[in-house]
Amino acid sequence: MLKKYLLAPGPTPVPSSVLLSMAQPMIHHRSPDFLPILDSAKKGLKWLFQTENDVLILCSSGTGGMVGAVTNFFNAGDKVIVVNGGKFGERWTKICQTYGLNVKEIIVEWGYAVKPSDIENELKADPDIKGVFIQAVETSTGVYYDVEAIAKIVRQFDNTLLIVDAISALVAHDLKTDEWGIDIMVGGSQKGLMLPAGLSFVSISPKAWRANERAKLPRFYFNLKKEHENLQKNQTNFSSPVTLIIALNEAIKLLQNEGLQNVFNRHTTLAHATREAVKAIGLSLYSKESPSNSVTAIEMPAGIDGQTVYKTLREKYGVTGAGGQDRARGKIIRLAHLGYADVFDVIVGIASLEMTLKGLGYPLELGKGVAKAQELLMR
Amino acid sequence: MLKKYLLAPGPTPVPSSVLLSMAQPMIHHRSPDFLPILDSAKKGLKWLFQTENDVLILCSSGTGGMVGAVTNFFNAGDKVIVVNGGKFGERWTKICQTYGLNVKEIIVEWGYAVKPSDIENELKADPDIKGVFIQAVETSTGVYYDVEAIAKIVRQFDNTLLIVDAISALVAHDLKTDEWGIDIMVGGSQKGLMLPAGLSFVSISPKAWRANERAKLPRFYFNLKKEHENLQKNQTNFSSPVTLIIALNEAIKLLQNEGLQNVFNRHTTLAHATREAVKAIGLSLYSKESPSNSVTAIEMPAGIDGQTVYKTLREKYGVTGAGGQDRARGKIIRLAHLGYADVFDVIVGIASLEMTLKGLGYPLELGKGVAKAQELLMR
Repeated sequence: MLKKYLLAPGPTPVPSSVLLSMAQPMIHHRSPDFLPILDSAKKGLKWLFQTENDVLILCSSGTGGMVGAVTNFFNAGDKVIVVNGGKFGERWTKICQTYGLNVKEIIVEWGYAVKPSDIENELKADPDIKGVFIQAVETSTGVYYDVEAIAKIVRQFDNTLLIVDAISALVAHDLKTDEWGIDIMVGGSQKGLMLPAGLSFVSISPKAWRANERAKLPRFYFNLKKEHENLQKNQTNFSSPVTLIIALNEAIKLLQNEGLQNVFNRHTTLAHATREAVKAIGLSLYSKESPSNSVTAIEMPAGIDGQTVYKTLREKYGVTGAGGQDRARGKIIRLAHLGYADVFDVIVGIASLEMTLKGLGYPLELGKGVAKAQELLMR
Repeated sequence: MLKKYLLAPGPTPVPSSVLLSMAQPMIHHRSPDFLPILDSAKKGLKWLFQTENDVLILCSSGTGGMVGAVTNFFNAGDKVIVVNGGKFGERWTKICQTYGLNVKEIIVEWGYAVKPSDIENELKADPDIKGVFIQAVETSTGVYYDVEAIAKIVRQFDNTLLIVDAISALVAHDLKTDEWGIDIMVGGSQKGLMLPAGLSFVSISPKAWRANERAKLPRFYFNLKKEHENLQKNQTNFSSPVTLIIALNEAIKLLQNEGLQNVFNRHTTLAHATREAVKAIGLSLYSKESPSNSVTAIEMPAGIDGQTVYKTLREKYGVTGAGGQDRARGKIIRLAHLGYADVFDVIVGIASLEMTLKGLGYPLELGKGVAKAQELLMR
């Protein structure tokens, strides 16, 4: 009887009421039954994305939304900046290059945040840059980029769009889409939204829609203009993932009951407690700057292999975190506090990490990290 | 208390055990928990597709699989044939043209099947044709094309691939992928497979993989070679729709318990009974040739509007069928017998159609169609 705990930065645990909402008899997406469902999802996403613009719902993983954000707003040869500070920055580059964009990368050392002034300097040096692609949270390093400051810079350039991958940040970080001027923001279902994978979301500003008119890259499945026309009629281009959209409404209802500011505060508190507990154990954070509210990346001490920690956590304690990717593989363990997460997810994560490290021979005093988390999480 | 009956050609009803399989706690697609799940899905799909080749699982609606079938095997400028005999033939043309293929359409009158000899003549006239795109079942007209005869022709041409949209045909029709030599076959989850929308499936022959090596169209989200490499490790490129893949395994288990030939026989019997009942009512089939086992398209009598019939069936009787699309709009009603369908789905469909038409003033003898269906469906 090994109970299972999912503490990965996506997929994240799905609340029972959301799981059960998917067990309803199927309804047809072209019948009137579906119209109020999609209408409700549309309104809920505007609330969550903090925007007056429509948020498109695509039947794909988050990466599909990222592809749509490239192919619908740019042309081959367009000069764009990609902030590459981890696996998902690298993904922006790969997508842009696949479609022939001219990518200038701002390379950020893993574990650090991009300096907004570096983006400003690039934009000032070349007024022909058509887009700036960033993550809000770079999942592979656990770092949050200063989206507000970056948006403040980019919005001064009339011909430059800001495209934010908020897949891991949404729900955990307060992202003021309209107020800050984020042109395109991409979300995914299997993260803060507490849903299974299968939906991506894209919000689009009027400035981005103007770029769409000039964008000629081929697109069919992710044709966002057609998707938008259909959404205005409470329809989708192709067969709607009705089941996941019903679940989306249930998840949004849970977040609305909590209140958006409370949701952000909860994530801030859980993340802070996790970090302080990690330090109390005597470990270091992998995120040297601006650690995110979504996931905490923890450096493994000398002589302890991160993949062994990942495996031990899973096999001995039933706790699924995430190891490091690429150059961080073996060096870190990541514990998320994202979406359907509360006090005792943090306690379980820290307690199991202490027990695992102790078992692997790392000298620590059991309960020290837990006590720190308890102290910070007492209500 | 209006009970609801879903008799549309996708989405189709989802069995309770499949719905409930989706209510399990989330697991991580990069954890060992997922490997046996995807392995099982892989084996189940090979069985269902009747192929030794791997069947890829994509997180998209069926149209995503269609896009992948174009962008991974062709180049801009390639000459291809599209059989266009309805809305979904038209979709092949649109996708191919979006990516710059040189499309020669074989236009088939709605309600009729393509003549295999017409394809043969085109291929003989131009040895440079790289692909033939067809539907197995053209959902908009309810017609089944003779895939076996078409495959026999196309496989004689070394440089020509046969690409079959089997989204509405799979499970209802016996499609012998390997034996007939279908190079690429696309399926979707929300049809015969009795699942919610959100997955597409693509089987790929060795001949198609050779074409893939020369194909240079841009692709990222639907990069089938990478998807295949990952599938061999029981992984997917991006966040896996774990929930739907668990449901897929449950649905395949139901089909395997029934037996593949029994599944086809059931669909043949239900479709035959539906057609004969329709004739007993005094109505005509819209499919003038080769009506499918998936869906029966029924011509509305003079003075009766198909959309009114669709609406009355839904609102008065709780029965969701499908109306006609485009030029068939208002002229037909479609009743499916696809996937999780049995004797009494046919009886409900015919009974509600009789009651609806009678209510709209069409002179018919109630129960005549039902009696014919009963006679043919007695076990």
